[in-house]
Amino acid sequence: MPLLAGLTRRRRLVTVGAIVLLTLGVFVAKTATAHASGADEETQFILNTFMFLVWGALIMWMCAGFTMLESGSVRTKNASMICLKNIGLYAVAGLAYFVVGYNLMYVDVGSVIGSLDFLYGASDDEIALLTEEADTTASVIGAGHATMSDWFFQMVFVATTASIVSGAIAERIKLWSFLLFVLILTAIIYPIVGAWTWGGGWLAELGFQDFAGSTIVHSTGGWAALAGVLVVGPRLGKFRRDGSVKPTPPSNILVVTLGVFILWLGWFGFNGGSQLALGSAADAVAMSQILVNTNLAAAAGVVAALAVSRPILGRIDLFAGLNGAIAGLVSITAGPDIVDHYWAIIIGAIGGLICTGGIKLLETVRLDDVVGAIPAHLFAGVWGTLAVCIAAGGSFHVQLAGVAAIGAFVFVTTFILWRAIDATIGLRVSAEVERLGQDSAELGIEAYPEFVLMPEEDDRE
Amino acid sequence: MPLLAGLTRRRRLVTVGAIVLLTLGVFVAKTATAHASGADEETQFILNTFMFLVWGALIMWMCAGFTMLESGSVRTKNASMICLKNIGLYAVAGLAYFVVGYNLMYVDVGSVIGSLDFLYGASDDEIALLTEEADTTASVIGAGHATMSDWFFQMVFVATTASIVSGAIAERIKLWSFLLFVLILTAIIYPIVGAWTWGGGWLAELGFQDFAGSTIVHSTGGWAALAGVLVVGPRLGKFRRDGSVKPTPPSNILVVTLGVFILWLGWFGFNGGSQLALGSAADAVAMSQILVNTNLAAAAGVVAALAVSRPILGRIDLFAGLNGAIAGLVSITAGPDIVDHYWAIIIGAIGGLICTGGIKLLETVRLDDVVGAIPAHLFAGVWGTLAVCIAAGGSFHVQLAGVAAIGAFVFVTTFILWRAIDATIGLRVSAEVERLGQDSAELGIEAYPEFVLMPEEDDRE
Amino acid sequence: MPLLAGLTRRRRLVTVGAIVLLTLGVFVAKTATAHASGADEETQFILNTFMFLVWGALIMWMCAGFTMLESGSVRTKNASMICLKNIGLYAVAGLAYFVVGYNLMYVDVGSVIGSLDFLYGASDDEIALLTEEADTTASVIGAGHATMSDWFFQMVFVATTASIVSGAIAERIKLWSFLLFVLILTAIIYPIVGAWTWGGGWLAELGFQDFAGSTIVHSTGGWAALAGVLVVGPRLGKFRRDGSVKPTPPSNILVVTLGVFILWLGWFGFNGGSQLALGSAADAVAMSQILVNTNLAAAAGVVAALAVSRPILGRIDLFAGLNGAIAGLVSITAGPDIVDHYWAIIIGAIGGLICTGGIKLLETVRLDDVVGAIPAHLFAGVWGTLAVCIAAGGSFHVQLAGVAAIGAFVFVTTFILWRAIDATIGLRVSAEVERLGQDSAELGIEAYPEFVLMPEEDDRE
Repeated sequence: MPLLAGLTRRRRLVTVGAIVLLTLGVFVAKTATAHASGADEETQFILNTFMFLVWGALIMWMCAGFTMLESGSVRTKNASMICLKNIGLYAVAGLAYFVVGYNLMYVDVGSVIGSLDFLYGASDDEIALLTEEADTTASVIGAGHATMSDWFFQMVFVATTASIVSGAIAERIKLWSFLLFVLILTAIIYPIVGAWTWGGGWLAELGFQDFAGSTIVHSTGGWAALAGVLVVGPRLGKFRRDGSVKPTPPSNILVVTLGVFILWLGWFGFNGGSQLALGSAADAVAMSQILVNTNLAAAAGVVAALAVSRPILGRIDLFAGLNGAIAGLVSITAGPDIVDHYWAIIIGAIGGLICTGGIKLLETVRLDDVVGAIPAHLFAGVWGTLAVCIAAGGSFHVQLAGVAAIGAFVFVTTFILWRAIDATIGLRVSAEVERLGQDSAELGIEAYPEFVLMPEEDDRE
Repeated sequence: MPLLAGLTRRRRLVTVGAIVLLTLGVFVAKTATAHASGADEETQFILNTFMFLVWGALIMWMCAGFTMLESGSVRTKNASMICLKNIGLYAVAGLAYFVVGYNLMYVDVGSVIGSLDFLYGASDDEIALLTEEADTTASVIGAGHATMSDWFFQMVFVATTASIVSGAIAERIKLWSFLLFVLILTAIIYPIVGAWTWGGGWLAELGFQDFAGSTIVHSTGGWAALAGVLVVGPRLGKFRRDGSVKPTPPSNILVVTLGVFILWLGWFGFNGGSQLALGSAADAVAMSQILVNTNLAAAAGVVAALAVSRPILGRIDLFAGLNGAIAGLVSITAGPDIVDHYWAIIIGAIGGLICTGGIKLLETVRLDDVVGAIPAHLFAGVWGTLAVCIAAGGSFHVQLAGVAAIGAFVFVTTFILWRAIDATIGLRVSAEVERLGQDSAELGIEAYPEFVLMPEEDDRE
Repeated sequence: MPLLAGLTRRRRLVTVGAIVLLTLGVFVAKTATAHASGADEETQFILNTFMFLVWGALIMWMCAGFTMLESGSVRTKNASMICLKNIGLYAVAGLAYFVVGYNLMYVDVGSVIGSLDFLYGASDDEIALLTEEADTTASVIGAGHATMSDWFFQMVFVATTASIVSGAIAERIKLWSFLLFVLILTAIIYPIVGAWTWGGGWLAELGFQDFAGSTIVHSTGGWAALAGVLVVGPRLGKFRRDGSVKPTPPSNILVVTLGVFILWLGWFGFNGGSQLALGSAADAVAMSQILVNTNLAAAAGVVAALAVSRPILGRIDLFAGLNGAIAGLVSITAGPDIVDHYWAIIIGAIGGLICTGGIKLLETVRLDDVVGAIPAHLFAGVWGTLAVCIAAGGSFHVQLAGVAAIGAFVFVTTFILWRAIDATIGLRVSAEVERLGQDSAELGIEAYPEFVLMPEEDDRE
């Protein structure tokens, strides 16, 4: 210690002591600072949980969005039925996912499927904490978030998948047949897709990227809708013998527009919450990127769909613009966390184009998708899943494999399921019910019983 | 200190110093770690406050839900008036609760009533902190949450109570008479009920359990509605001389459905925020349980109500299904924090059954509740309050006592109040106004002035 | 050191060492406690960011509110077009603000304008953190919130400004001309106003107070609307030759009411989020005050507008009451953080009066503002900006200067812009299109194609 050489021994002692003290003090202070610079674990736990609940609530709200979008899009005579189908499907999906779906998707997933246990619930430690039987705070916190906050968040996702289906096959499918389909879709089919991916199964192991579910949620719903449209066939009179297509414009544009705004809002929760955490600065930054990308893609989807609606559909088409928003949102959903903002605009815009083209395509091949769910959710979902590796890297082959595997699985199983329902309890309402409308014929309730309606042109082909 | 025996004195000194240092350092580090393992107090304060604000905003949104539910349920000729009544009641309730209600409910509550002070506001410490007059952070934080965040949360609750009333007695009550009733309900009657319970009064001391207000909010609204229905009587022509009941289907089903979705969404705030804190892992876990139970009960309410609607009401009834959701939500509200998930399903399902049966019952006893508020909020509220002790323990007698005491108090006072209003400024519109509809006769504005309406069948009895 | 005089030197050394140790230890402990008693920096960062995202999402929802308010207020024949304009403006505003607007408003603002850079995005440190290239947590946290969370929050503000315009000039302006106007308003004009104030420019340096934008957002939108109304002129037949005014009541009151509830809800985000931080108890207290003041002012606006609607407009006017809510909200927006609660009531009530009087005034001077946007946003915005210094101090002259400078700038630039658009691509639809309605004539889509509509009375003057 040459620096201390001129000092007496005693002074040296004091000096050494002081140096030790200062060093230690600084060390301790740094330790404290280091702790203070990260959110503590309990705060992280709370923030993760609260984030799931707030964003999850917004996603639940998307069910109202689908309900409005669909009930405003169908003809008045079927608008009540679509309301009933939508609130019914949300109820059924939530119960089915609680009883069996979540377990199949997330509990002890091997490579293809989780556990066939019944019911789901808080952990024992959480129960002990709530009932004050034991202070299990530390082990509860170790899980990162409250068990059921994640369940809640996942449950509203499965409901979204089911919501996509109802619109495409509206105006001709029986209520109970539809709800039975939803039950199996949400209890088994969607959870299997989820187990392959978010549950950690074989596609996850391959490195399949689908952040919030362009494929897992939206294409899954879209494939199920496509299978349904193929099995049940078009509405009476939609495609005429002479090759022309009967226009079936939305019966209530304001309600459709409201529905799209609801979906746009809910998507902030859908994509933002899929960060799955809010316990660090990195999570907060990522969530901000996600919301901005989500909004930019939707905006670009609107503009692009409107711009191409005149060449493709022959007019500035509001309905195409509204579906463009949804297609933009679906497209960005596979990678809102990792693509650059300008890429979000490109991805969303192409999504809008694809959707508008898809609406035309479906008419051309005479598939009757009442609300445009297949172009907006399936076509744009496929695009978005592939786009993520174009914009941000990753294996194109793996993305394609995921799209194809999930597509094949969902299309085949739902096709069989639609057929099975058709062969047993029946899928399609009678021609008489279809002509009268499901509202008065099946429900005995009209959507707007006091308004005088235009007589509908003949439905005969 | 035998361990140090072989050392020179000077070395001993240094060594002792080092040991002291290390001990202290470890102590300090542990202190810091101990702090870091729980959310610190200021973070807890922020989380508690923010939670009140976010969930409170969602509860405010329930007023829009009631407005849509009610304005879509009444006949077109009264739909504008119900919009006006609802935005008016929210305004009046908020002002009344600010001027006097909150103080009666929460400030210096003895066993029956709080303080008759006027106005309410932030604490002096909070004002000092905001104006930077003094650093009162520590004492502000000590309160657990910002004073007015709690006020905001409580205010939206009282508005909910008032909202329940407007629908039941719609289509026949004068605007100003209704708003006067709301003023007294929200300034005095509801706050007294609240003082007995959440304010810490005699029912709280007995151990009455009503987590988020199955009885305190929903049954209170329901009793006030029942008293109103009894005093004002049915709509002209609703119950015919021959014993038959004139059907008065909702005039706009889409809007009713939207209203129910809004209420369902808002209920996540209503029940979730009633945890009253988000500062610990236990709070976060509890809030997650609450949202899941809330959703399961609503889902079960929908399914049960739909299932029994055919035997009870003669058809699959969408309106019953929608009310089933609300009844499920009301039913779970007394104990969403403590019942098991499967119990939430049972409680909600029974709520849905009771509501559907209640709709039939009211018709049978010739009580005219336009939107089904009494079955959904009163009947299901009573059920939920009793169910909480069936499912999760507690005294059945105390629950029954609370239901009975609050029921008797609210029913009697509101009955007298309705009568007093009737005897002074008048309660019911003239038969002529009722036939024409309040929209054109009282407001001079129609809900949908450009739509051609069906001529209404005669209202004569 | 007389206290240590009786001790041997060695003991003194030890004692001195111990004292130093204890002092240091206490200092370190206090440091740690000090850190622990405030939210740590990373938690603050997360809370600030999450607050921006949650409240920002609610503000985006206000666009749905404006859409509903406006599409329910116009005549049925133009309701689809207003839906399209509103979703279009939200898309355009978001893209324009991303490409150039935000930079002009916030980046390197001198006294009048920011930087003319293109695009905006996360900081390099944030990108490095997200891509895990480097642990830049500390420097990221130093910014206080995620870069794009603030961008998101600011973006939804500019969309609000644009939304205000569409309603006033509805039913007669071409779609693309309107969207071009929005593009320039949101890319350039609004950002310049913002640079003067929130960006730190000359008005900010003068001490101009406009917390969440009574003037900056609402009056800016109102001035742009007024200029548009002057340039484009009234709807055909609105003001008759004989001096009478053709009534054009809202075509769908339920939807208007829903829109107002949406706006009211969104305003909690609009004002609450304008606290711009949630990292301290003071922020949380301030945000609570803000939400309560926002709600009280809106409530008072409703009551006051309803109360004076009979003397001013000749009847209890629901539409005036609904606009009263908005006027109350606009009025409080300049100072919800600093006025007392009773002042919030007074400010909101006067806002409601001004709005109702303004509706009458505009009719008198024969200006055709379809939805009452000018009274609700411009008149109430001016009032609110002045009221803040009446209620809470500050320079009246500075407030007046800000109101005048922003008013002059926005009115003149938008007047020129409207004229320029009119002179080039044309602003107003043809008389034929106006008679038929923009929905069928321009869009080829009707809002409610199945409802039978009343024949409209002649539009000739």
